Formats: sequence, C-alpha cells, structure tokens
Amino acid sequence: MKLEVDKTKLVSEIEALASISDAEAPAVTRIVFTATDLKARAWLRARCEEAGLLLRTDAIGNTFARWTGSDPSLPAIGTGSHIDAIPNAGKYDGVVGVLGGLEAIRALQRCGFHPRHAIELLVFTAEEPTRFGIGCLGSRLLSGTLAADATRRLKDSQGDSLDEIRVSAGFGGELESVKLPGAYYRAFVEMHIEQGPLLERQQVPLGIVTSIAAPASLRITLAGPGGHAGGVLMPDRRDALCAAAEVVLAVEKAACASGASDTVATVGICEVFPGAVNSIPSRVRLSVDIRDTDLARRDGVMREIENSAQAVAARRQVALHTELVNADAPALCAPVVVEALGQSCRKYNLNFLPMVSRAYHDSLFMSQVAPTAMLFIPCRGGYSHRPDEYASPEDIVQGTLVLAETLAALSE
Amino acid sequence: MKLEVDKTKLVSEIEALASISDAEAPAVTRIVFTATDLKARAWLRARCEEAGLLLRTDAIGNTFARWTGSDPSLPAIGTGSHIDAIPNAGKYDGVVGVLGGLEAIRALQRCGFHPRHAIELLVFTAEEPTRFGIGCLGSRLLSGTLAADATRRLKDSQGDSLDEIRVSAGFGGELESVKLPGAYYRAFVEMHIEQGPLLERQQVPLGIVTSIAAPASLRITLAGPGGHAGGVLMPDRRDALCAAAEVVLAVEKAACASGASDTVATVGICEVFPGAVNSIPSRVRLSVDIRDTDLARRDGVMREIENSAQAVAARRQVALHTELVNADAPALCAPVVVEALGQSCRKYNLNFLPMVSRAYHDSLFMSQVAPTAMLFIPCRGGYSHRPDEYASPEDIVQGTLVLAETLAALSE
Repeated sequence: MKLEVDKTKLVSEIEALASISDAEAPAVTRIVFTATDLKARAWLRARCEEAGLLLRTDAIGNTFARWTGSDPSLPAIGTGSHIDAIPNAGKYDGVVGVLGGLEAIRALQRCGFHPRHAIELLVFTAEEPTRFGIGCLGSRLLSGTLAADATRRLKDSQGDSLDEIRVSAGFGGELESVKLPGAYYRAFVEMHIEQGPLLERQQVPLGIVTSIAAPASLRITLAGPGGHAGGVLMPDRRDALCAAAEVVLAVEKAACASGASDTVATVGICEVFPGAVNSIPSRVRLSVDIRDTDLARRDGVMREIENSAQAVAARRQVALHTELVNADAPALCAPVVVEALGQSCRKYNLNFLPMVSRAYHDSLFMSQVAPTAMLFIPCRGGYSHRPDEYASPEDIVQGTLVLAETLAALSE
Repeated sequence: MKLEVDKTKLVSEIEALASISDAEAPAVTRIVFTATDLKARAWLRARCEEAGLLLRTDAIGNTFARWTGSDPSLPAIGTGSHIDAIPNAGKYDGVVGVLGGLEAIRALQRCGFHPRHAIELLVFTAEEPTRFGIGCLGSRLLSGTLAADATRRLKDSQGDSLDEIRVSAGFGGELESVKLPGAYYRAFVEMHIEQGPLLERQQVPLGIVTSIAAPASLRITLAGPGGHAGGVLMPDRRDALCAAAEVVLAVEKAACASGASDTVATVGICEVFPGAVNSIPSRVRLSVDIRDTDLARRDGVMREIENSAQAVAARRQVALHTELVNADAPALCAPVVVEALGQSCRKYNLNFLPMVSRAYHDSLFMSQVAPTAMLFIPCRGGYSHRPDEYASPEDIVQGTLVLAETLAALSE
C-alpha cells in the first residue's frame, strides 16, 4: 500500500471552505446554524458524496460520512472535527481535521485499501461556544455528557432557543436520539492544529495527545445602580465596570498564581450595560474560561476567582451573580489509539511529541464513548482563533498521511 | 397676571412622549434620527402647532417653535432642551425642559400675556452622544463650536455618515446654515432635572445654575495579539482586556484623587474584540468621560489618565491609541438671566440654590451665543439616565411656573 496525500486538492479545499465566511478574508467567521454555516455544510456534503461516502445527519446537525467496511456488523473507526468558527477566526481550527480526515479516506481509497471496519468522517456541530455559550454541543450530546433536557435552556444572544434555531436550520427530530449507542466506534482520532507554540518551538512535525485539559466556564454578572456620568459624584457611585475590572484582574492573577504553567484563565467577553458614553455602567457580564490538566488545581483556581469576585462585590456594594456554565473533567486518551498513532509516525520516520491538549476539543467528550486520541500539527506562533492562524501545507499533509495510516491500521 | 400651570396636561404629555420609545416602559430609548425619534418629533410639532407657534427646522433638525412678539425686530427669548434619550434612560432628562417650556408658553398665553420679544421654544438635536459619539451636536452647530466641516467625519456604529442619516431622516440643507446669527437670542433659559442629589438632599425645590462643568471625552483603544484561550500560556499573553481593566481602575483613581469633589470620570463603554468565550481579547475600546467645574483640574485628570494608560500599555506590551473626542471649556451663566430666575423664585416665595451643573447641557454651547442660564428641578435620588429617573409633578410645575415668569420678564 503506497499512501499518497493530494496536497493540491487538500489545500484548495481548505481555501474553498475558508471563503464561505461572514468575515473579510483572511478572517473566517462561521457561526453555527447561520446561512453561512448551512452553506459550508452543503459544500462539505457534496465533497463527501464525490468520495462515495454515505451521509447521515442527526438531530443536532452532527454529520456522519461513512465508508462502509467489508464487515458491516463491526463498530466503525471515526475521525473528524468541526467547521464552525468564532468571529474573526482563522482557516485551520477544526477544518484541518475535517478536510484532512476526508482526504485520508480518499487517499486510502486511491491506493486500493478496503477497510474491514467502516471508516467514518464525523463533523461535529458547534464545537465553538459562540452562539449558545457552551462548547462542544454536538459531542456533548453524542456522548450523553449533556442531557437533551438540559438543552432546553440554551438560547442565543437574540433570545432564540436552540430548538427553534436548529429546526429552522433543517435539523429536526428528538435530541434524545443523538446519543451514540454503546460501542458505536471502535476508535476515534481527531487531527487538529496545536493552537499552542510547542511543536513549532521544538521543530517537531506531529504531536500525539495523551490527555486533554479540563475546561470550566463561569458567567459573572455585576450590577449597581448606574446613573448619569456627570451627575453622580465619585463617592456616591457603585460602578459595575470598575468592579468588573477588578474581577478581570483577579482572574488573571488566580491563573498566574496556580503554581503550574498549564493553568490558564481568560475573560473573553465583557458586556457593559447600558453602554453609553455618559452613563455609569449599571451591569457588566463577564465570561470566564478556566483550563487545567489537573482537575483539583483547576477547581481551586475557580474557587479563588469566585472568592475574589465576592470580595470585590462586597467592598464595592454591587450585586454579584455567578453561574457555572460548564465544568468538564479532563480526559485521558486511549492507549490503543495513542499507540496506533505512534506506530504510524514511526512507519514514516516522523518525529512526534507526546503532549497535553490545553485547548479543548470534541475528543474530550468522544473519549467518554470511544477509545479516543488526537493528532496535533504545528501552527505558526501557536496562534489560533485569529485571522493569521496558519498551518503549512507540508505539516497538514504529513498529519493527513499519519491519520490515514492510523485509520487503516485500526480498521483492519 | 395670574400664571397657572396645567399640571394634568403637562404630566400627561410627559407620559405620552415617554411612550414613544424603543425600550420597554418605564425605560425610554430614543436615539436621534431613528424612526422612534422622528415619531416623537412629529408628535411634538403637533403640540406646538396646537399652541399656535410658528415652526422652523434647521439642517441638523434643531426645531424652533416661535410665539411672535409685538416687536418682530427684537431678538427672541429662547427656552428649551432635548428629547433624545440614551438606551434604557428615563422620562424626564431633556423632556422636562421641552414640555415644561411649551407649557410655560401656553400658561402665558392663557393669562393674556403678550410678549414684546418673541418667545421661542428650541428643541436641540442629539444632546446625547449615543449615536455619533459627540454630545450636544445641535447646540454645537448652533453656536459654531463645531464647524460644519468637522461633522464630515461623524459616523454611527453602523458606519453610516451623519450626512446620509440626517438627509434620509428628512433634514436637508447645508450644515453651515445652522449657526445662529449674532444676537439671535436676547436670553436663553434651559429648565432641566438636576441629575444629581443636592436639591433633594437639601429639600430645596429649585436650583439656579451659575456655571456648567467642563466635559471632556477620550476614546482609548488597547490592542494585543489575542489568541486561543486554551492554547496560549499566561506568560505568553498580552491580553487587551486585562490592560483595559487597569485603565478603567486608573480612570476611577484619577478622578477620586483630584482633590475636588466636583471631579468625576467614567468609563461608560467597554467593547471587547473578538468577544468570544474562548478567545483572549485582542482589542478593547474604552470611552472615558471626564468632567469638572475647573478647566485646569479637569485637564490635569485627563493627563493623569493618559499617563496611566501609557504606563499600562508599556508594561503589558499592548498597543495604545488615545483619541481626544472633545474637550469643552466650562461655561459661566449670564448674570442677567440668573438674576431674572432669582427674581421669579422670590416672587413666588420659592427657595432656590445657586449651583453648578456637573452634567453638561446644550446651554454650555448656547452660552457662547446668548446670555444663558439654567433652572434645575430636583430628581429622586439624583438618578438620571436610568428607567427609574423621576421628578415629581409638583416640582415640575413649580419649575415651569418660574420659567414662565422668567420668560415673561425677559420678553418685556
């Protein structure tokens, strides 16, 4: 078997998908269930059909494209990632795992390989939390981490419910049906850009992920009386934004003080109400994202942030509301899949780095229902979620080659 | 002459105008040149026509409703305020001066008074900076403080220019024509809610403003590389929101440290880009509003804020851009108008407090082209720019009575 990745086709497909975007190139914005997302999904389905794959979509819009194996009674080998993109993001996050996975299947088809276990490309819905405030919506439902019932409360910023939105996007049916049956996958492999600088710094072409950091997110709301920016004297103020500013700095401090370099915490959203030049802010909503490879340490940082917010609110006499949006456990990758990836690397004489994923991925949830591991490729400067996110064609091709080899090995 | 204010009519008109709003009652949102603003203007013009006033509108939409005097060769006596409202504001800011001014004219008409100088109600366009980022747009143009040319750069958040917007709202003509000719007004009096707590605290029904604080506003932008909230370790970050949080606190500190209770500074807007749960903020835009009755002290606070922002940006290695949006000089009110207001109060045995306006008003600019003063009435808790902003019918009626008396005295 002589595997060859079609670099020209893969690169042109990445560019084609990037052009289906709500941002000005090179930025990519593709929010789940927008017209743009639906257009990208249609484009991708057409590519899967060209490859002769059997398509299925579930009630949340997760898309399965299957290359049937010679023994249909056996569980499938899965690979895939997501194609949604946060506002003003790049071309590679998620997309490399989807289009690389598709090209891995085509490469295996071209060299005459016939799988015994089906090989299935899985495109997850809403890995990004942009629209509904919760990441990995599709894989949470697939794994049963999120109960269908718990999705009832999910709304976008316009106040429309997830159910209304998915149904008008064409994804009907009960969300209860999304959860995968037991042993649906024999193994699951997600290829992804690293979204960090380690591979590039160490000049290693591939990373094999052995564990995925534990993410948690909080929504913190601070509220005071507001008032006219000219009329209320400084001692009479209870400014919600000044309180929020202290909380933002407390989040940074708590992460830096955790004692481990793996701890990160970020305030990514700061919404100010009423948001007028001459009004004292009366309400501020912060979203806080906290990640660590160690669950206890992460929960310690989360408590430290909550305590700081309480102290700030008490001292400044503003109301505080803290909501735990999600707090997932870290995942250990499956040794059998990690080993299969390592063997493929060795077969092609490609150096690799065993590593921790500090970004979180659908694989975090897939690991609860299938033996799962991830393959990382370098990205320039470790940048991601930015328009200048970049992975070289050479690195993408090497990753795709190793992915194809691994899928083949696992499917025999 | 027995002046009587029609309380029932005045209160019902305030409620009627409040109902023309883009917010849910009791909140009022009325942004300049929106459909709602245009509806409110039409309603108000109808009220002025009912009172037999002659209507004129200039190229920026300032509306003049004139009760002709017996000697048309004499300059007019002006009164008025604004009806635009920031998002989620109250019913009284601006409106009390407009509808109270109209009722003052009607009260004079009812008791058979005939003015020698015309009495003119003036409704200013865009006192609030909400849409174009600059307050008192109408009065700046009337007074020539803002050159017509300088309005070319004004855009709203949608990127539409002031010129496009005003023309499609039905206000054509050259902005050069807005500036008032010399000695157009013999005097100008603006009635307004205090927007501060002093009258209520001291249980005095009226305030006569002797000077108006000097407002300035800055737009501060901080920018860093952003990145993925999971992928970039804490020491590698240059988080624009953490930098902005320090600037927000520096603004508060600079105002508190000025040494004078009149100094206030507020960050009313904090926009975070890209604004996603899992992205490190790459750009934050703050608007800073700084006010003081003393020009040198205010400028000192402004410099202190700029220096702090520079220090934060340097230490955190983020880019800093500071733009001075406006920095107006404080106004001294005209003794002749202040004295006329005082005489009217004494005539009705109403106690009054000579005071400084720390909120800024169209009168700040009118004072450059006419002898100007302001009459304040109490508002509950000093609250303004909030849905629960409140002035009692009794206080509004007393203010309107004094206003009518003053207009009569000045127009004889």
